[in-house]
Amino acid sequence: MQPESSAPEPITIAFDVMGGDHGPEEVVRGAAQLSLETPHLHALLVGDRALIDAALEGTRHSGERIAVHHASQWVEMSEKPSLALAQKPDASISVAARLVAEGEAQALVSAGNTGAGVLACAKHFKLIRGIRRAALAAVYPTQALHGQKQDPFSLILDVGATVDATAEDLVAFSVMGAAYSKIISKNPDPAVALLSNGTEPRKGPPRVVEAHERLSRTPGLRFIGNVEGVDIPKGTADVIACDGFVGNVCLKMLEGIHETVLELARYAYKEKLLWRAGLAMLSSGIERIKQVTDWEQYGGAPILGFDRIFIKAHGRSRARAIANAGKVAAKAVAKDLARSIEQGLPS
Amino acid sequence: MQPESSAPEPITIAFDVMGGDHGPEEVVRGAAQLSLETPHLHALLVGDRALIDAALEGTRHSGERIAVHHASQWVEMSEKPSLALAQKPDASISVAARLVAEGEAQALVSAGNTGAGVLACAKHFKLIRGIRRAALAAVYPTQALHGQKQDPFSLILDVGATVDATAEDLVAFSVMGAAYSKIISKNPDPAVALLSNGTEPRKGPPRVVEAHERLSRTPGLRFIGNVEGVDIPKGTADVIACDGFVGNVCLKMLEGIHETVLELARYAYKEKLLWRAGLAMLSSGIERIKQVTDWEQYGGAPILGFDRIFIKAHGRSRARAIANAGKVAAKAVAKDLARSIEQGLPS
Repeated sequence: MQPESSAPEPITIAFDVMGGDHGPEEVVRGAAQLSLETPHLHALLVGDRALIDAALEGTRHSGERIAVHHASQWVEMSEKPSLALAQKPDASISVAARLVAEGEAQALVSAGNTGAGVLACAKHFKLIRGIRRAALAAVYPTQALHGQKQDPFSLILDVGATVDATAEDLVAFSVMGAAYSKIISKNPDPAVALLSNGTEPRKGPPRVVEAHERLSRTPGLRFIGNVEGVDIPKGTADVIACDGFVGNVCLKMLEGIHETVLELARYAYKEKLLWRAGLAMLSSGIERIKQVTDWEQYGGAPILGFDRIFIKAHGRSRARAIANAGKVAAKAVAKDLARSIEQGLPS
Repeated sequence: MQPESSAPEPITIAFDVMGGDHGPEEVVRGAAQLSLETPHLHALLVGDRALIDAALEGTRHSGERIAVHHASQWVEMSEKPSLALAQKPDASISVAARLVAEGEAQALVSAGNTGAGVLACAKHFKLIRGIRRAALAAVYPTQALHGQKQDPFSLILDVGATVDATAEDLVAFSVMGAAYSKIISKNPDPAVALLSNGTEPRKGPPRVVEAHERLSRTPGLRFIGNVEGVDIPKGTADVIACDGFVGNVCLKMLEGIHETVLELARYAYKEKLLWRAGLAMLSSGIERIKQVTDWEQYGGAPILGFDRIFIKAHGRSRARAIANAGKVAAKAVAKDLARSIEQGLPS
C-alpha cells in the first residue's frame, strides 16, 4: 500500500466549454485556475478552438496541463435537448462525452443545457450494472449540519432525470446518493430517507411504500425511513430519494423562496437606506435565510448512475464554481464512485 | 329577484368541538363569537355536552343561535383515522358529519384529525356527480396579489386526500379549485395551472400531460398551462392543481421554510437585543418573509368534491380562526359551491 503522501494519479477532466450563461471565457478561466492549483489534474477543453485560444491567451494557466479539442457546434441553453443533439452531431457536449467514454478524459464537467448533458451521457456512457435509470442529484443547504465536515448541505435526488421512478429506481437512487455523500461530503455513514407524505412506512403511493420495504432490508445503508416536505429545508436526512417529478418541483420551490427572499432584501435596502445599524443586522439576518434557501451556492450537481462521472455545474457558474466542479469530479474519479455505487446495490 | 339588502337565509354550521390542539373551549369560543357577530348563522356544537356547557358558561354568546348535540367519543390528533372511526362509532366528527348529511346543519367545521374528517365525510356525504375523488385544498400566502380583493393567497389542491390522482382527477381538482376561488376569494376569473417539472405542455408524467390536454379544452376555465415549483411561492396562478403526494410534500416544505425563518428570527432577537433600531427593521423584514411562508394564517382548508361543505380548520386554530372557518363554510353554502363545481365540470 502506498503512503498517503505519495503523488496522486493524474486525472483528466473534460470541460464542455460552450455551455453556461457567461460564455466560454468563464469555463476556460475555471479550468485555468484548476491547472495552477492542482498539479495532478489536467483539463481537456472541448469547444470552438478559436474562442478557447483567445480566452486562454488572457488567462494565467499551466500550458502543459491544458489541452484543447475542437468542436464546431454547441447546444444553446434554450434548445430542446433531443432535437439539438440530433441536429448537431459535433456539439461540444456530445464530443466531450464521447472523449470521456473513449478514455481521453475520466470525467465530464458542463455548465450547459442539463437535458442535453444527460442525453449525451446516456448515449455515450454505460449505466452501472444494477442501475436502470440515471438520476440528477442536487446539493442544497439546510439548517442542520452534516457529516465530518459539518457541512450545511444535503443531497436530494432525482430532481428531473427520471420523472416516473419505480420502487427499484428509488432504491438505486438511495444507494447512489449514499455513495456520493460518503465520497464527496466525507460523511462515513449518511442518513438516507425517502420523501413521502407521512413518516409512517405505509404512507405514500405504492412505489414509495415498496421502496421503503426494500430499503429496510438493504445492508450497509443507514435508512432512516420516510421524511416529509418539512424535513427538506431542515436537513433531517443527509440524502433524500424521490422521483424526478416531485424532486424537481421541490428544488424549484426552494429557488422560488430564495427569489422571494432576495426581493424582500432588495426592498429593505431601498426603503431603509438611512438606518445603517439596522441595515447591517437586516442584512446578516437575511444573509442566513438566503444561505438556507440558496441551493446554487454549492456549484455542481452530479448525474449518478453511469460508469463515468458527469458533474453539471449551474448555468450561472463563474470560474470559481467551475474549478470546484472539476475538483469534485476528480474526487469522484479518484475514489471510484461508480464502483462504490455498484457495491452498495442490494444483490 | 330579491334585493341584496334582504335578510340572508339562516344557515347552521356543525362544529366538531372535540378536535383541535386547544381543546373544546377554543372551538366553543369561536362558535360563540360567530353567534354574536352574524345573526343569520347558527352553530350546532357536537361533542361532550358537559365540557361544552362548561365552556359556554364562561363565554358571551347568543343562546338562541347555539344548539348542542352530545357525542360520547372523539378522535385524537395522533390516532390512525380508519381505526379510530371503526372503534368509535359515536366520535364527534362522525356524528357531526352524519347530522350534516341528515340536514340538521348545512356545513361542517373541524379543527381535529384531518384524515378522520375526510373519512367521516366520505362515509356520510355523497361525491358530486362527475367527481371521482375528493381533494383537500390549502390556501397559502404568496408574493403576488390575487382577485378583486387583492388577496395575497393562492389555492393548491390536492394536498393529501388523493395520493394517486389520475388525469381525470386533476381536471376535477382544477374545476373545484376555480369554483372555490370564485366564490370564496371573489376572484371572478381565476388563473388555474397544473404543477409540473416544466412549463411546456408535454412536460411531466403521463397523467399530467393528459390533464393538460383536457384542461386546454375545458370551457369556462382560464387554464394558464403548467407552472413549476418556483411559481408556488410567487403566486403565478390563483389555483394550482396537483396530486395529493406532491401537493402534500410542497405544503409541508412551505411549513419547514417557515419554521426555519421563525428560528432565525428568534436567534436574531436573542443575539442582538440592544440594537433597537435594527431590531425593528429586522422584525419588519422577517415579518414579511413569515407572511409569505406561513400557509396557516388563513384559517380553513376546504375538502372539495362532496355535496356538503367541510372546512378543516388548522389544529392550532384559536377562536378567531374557528369563527372565520365558520364564515367561510357559510359563504360556500350560501353560494352553493357544490352546484358551481358540478356545472364547471367538462361534460
